[in-house]
Amino acid sequence: MITKQIGLGLLGLGNIGSGVYKVLELNRKHIEQTTGLDLRITRILEIDQDRDRGFAVEPGIFTLDPETIFSDPAIDIVIELLGGTEPATAYMARAMDAGKSVVTANKAALAENYELLTETAFKNGVKLRFEASVGGGIPLIGAIKDHLAANEFTEMLGILNGTTNYILTKMSEEGYSYEDALAEAQKLGFAEPDPTSDVEGHDVANKLSILMSLAFGKRVRPDEIPTRGISQITKDDIEEAEAEGCVIKLLASAFRSENGVECFIQPTFLNKTHPLADVRNEFNALFIKGNAVDELMLYGKGAGPYPTASAVLGDVVAIAKDL
Amino acid sequence: MITKQIGLGLLGLGNIGSGVYKVLELNRKHIEQTTGLDLRITRILEIDQDRDRGFAVEPGIFTLDPETIFSDPAIDIVIELLGGTEPATAYMARAMDAGKSVVTANKAALAENYELLTETAFKNGVKLRFEASVGGGIPLIGAIKDHLAANEFTEMLGILNGTTNYILTKMSEEGYSYEDALAEAQKLGFAEPDPTSDVEGHDVANKLSILMSLAFGKRVRPDEIPTRGISQITKDDIEEAEAEGCVIKLLASAFRSENGVECFIQPTFLNKTHPLADVRNEFNALFIKGNAVDELMLYGKGAGPYPTASAVLGDVVAIAKDL
Repeated sequence: MITKQIGLGLLGLGNIGSGVYKVLELNRKHIEQTTGLDLRITRILEIDQDRDRGFAVEPGIFTLDPETIFSDPAIDIVIELLGGTEPATAYMARAMDAGKSVVTANKAALAENYELLTETAFKNGVKLRFEASVGGGIPLIGAIKDHLAANEFTEMLGILNGTTNYILTKMSEEGYSYEDALAEAQKLGFAEPDPTSDVEGHDVANKLSILMSLAFGKRVRPDEIPTRGISQITKDDIEEAEAEGCVIKLLASAFRSENGVECFIQPTFLNKTHPLADVRNEFNALFIKGNAVDELMLYGKGAGPYPTASAVLGDVVAIAKDL
Repeated sequence: MITKQIGLGLLGLGNIGSGVYKVLELNRKHIEQTTGLDLRITRILEIDQDRDRGFAVEPGIFTLDPETIFSDPAIDIVIELLGGTEPATAYMARAMDAGKSVVTANKAALAENYELLTETAFKNGVKLRFEASVGGGIPLIGAIKDHLAANEFTEMLGILNGTTNYILTKMSEEGYSYEDALAEAQKLGFAEPDPTSDVEGHDVANKLSILMSLAFGKRVRPDEIPTRGISQITKDDIEEAEAEGCVIKLLASAFRSENGVECFIQPTFLNKTHPLADVRNEFNALFIKGNAVDELMLYGKGAGPYPTASAVLGDVVAIAKDL
């Protein structure tokens, strides 16, 4: 196999960016042997260049000017890991206008600017891939978009937030109160110091918005999705669920009805026999029903630098193969 | 979006072939709307042309001569659903030599002739896809080959045969004897009149052989895989597992060790907390560990005309998008 060199420009070297860098160092040889692709990060946009990340970045690779990445002919793919809506959206659009394909893990930017970003990719004849934006390392988006393309979907149920699933598991299996479970999640790094976005379901709303576009061709903005989080769940609720043979899960739901496609996010009593009931701790899963494939569930780690890097680099490989 | 017409030649209109035909009829409009592809089966190789399949095939579409498919310039993709090693392998090679891409569900032909078929595709610059050959509608192969391409895999455990999983579930949950559970599976069409290939693990050996090539780059012929089936499992075994907090599953196992990559197939005591323990009845699942993604599980229907058609047509769409 002839090796093909692929230049990568990285926007952001935070937690996820560092994960991508490290997984690429770890598996570069393996990726080259199995795919024939020599993937090289040749430039990184990052302000915080001196932080100790546990690995050494080649000097001169850092830049403060995104244009040096967009205008570099040696860069084939731009990986956007800045997070947040802006400037991430503007940078992705600029990269695509400059003829670069883009890989992103940015659920907020996608949920907010889905049409703009997908149309910019289409207009420029470049690829935009975002497997890491929903479900971390779990290949949800590839499954829906590609492998299940011959299905019409009827129903989708997701556990798409590891923080809330961890809290609910602790409450249900070890009798924790909501407050104690949240504190434990924060101690372990599963929850942010300000946990609002996770526990109130806003994080899940971004993800469900993206999945709605893909699975049902229906554009719903995150703030249009009826959303209730888990902060009001009590020990009594957990016990009531248990008494009914159920567990409480924060479910992202979407289904076809007489009114078209409906969706919402709320804590739900889920029968223990349902495949999603056994998704514990920080794990995520998507349960989806198609009119050909029937029931399908994809399960794995929905967050974390390494699982997210797995998805980002999977997208990079997919694009690079076609370059 | 401009619609692209794609001509499909079908080899075999048995159970799976009829499933592909029906799913395509059912979802053709939806596929065209979402992918811009107008997929048309324009020719079918089949001896049994008069059987009542519950749908009408356009007259003149049947042929007895495979060369009319291979030499037809209007056919872009050949779908091989004959089953068995020959003439399926020869036909697939012939189709690829004639410049057609090939989609197949044929685990036996792939396990037996993996190098020949993949090299023939490479040599001719055409695609060979076989998502349906392992795990029916579950996108296992796409996950391993594409989405998880940045991982080195350390471990793989699969429940890859619905017949045996159904039998073991009946024995474990309803106290059936092996013989009664097998009879029930046969009554429901989950087991063949001669169940040897399923219950002795030969079907799983074909599938594990394919997965070994993909996940570990290691070619192992099915008859080289140490294989033990479930026909010797007794009620006592089931009770012993239960007493130890386990269930018995027929597992296809592969893992890296000091000796390279090892693999085997055998009934295994699986702790009830393991994600695979809840895979019940005729469902299949693959549990895989990668050094970036960590634990991942894919779960769904591993057989049946519709789930298999979902995988076949997913492959067709993937190829057609690039044509």
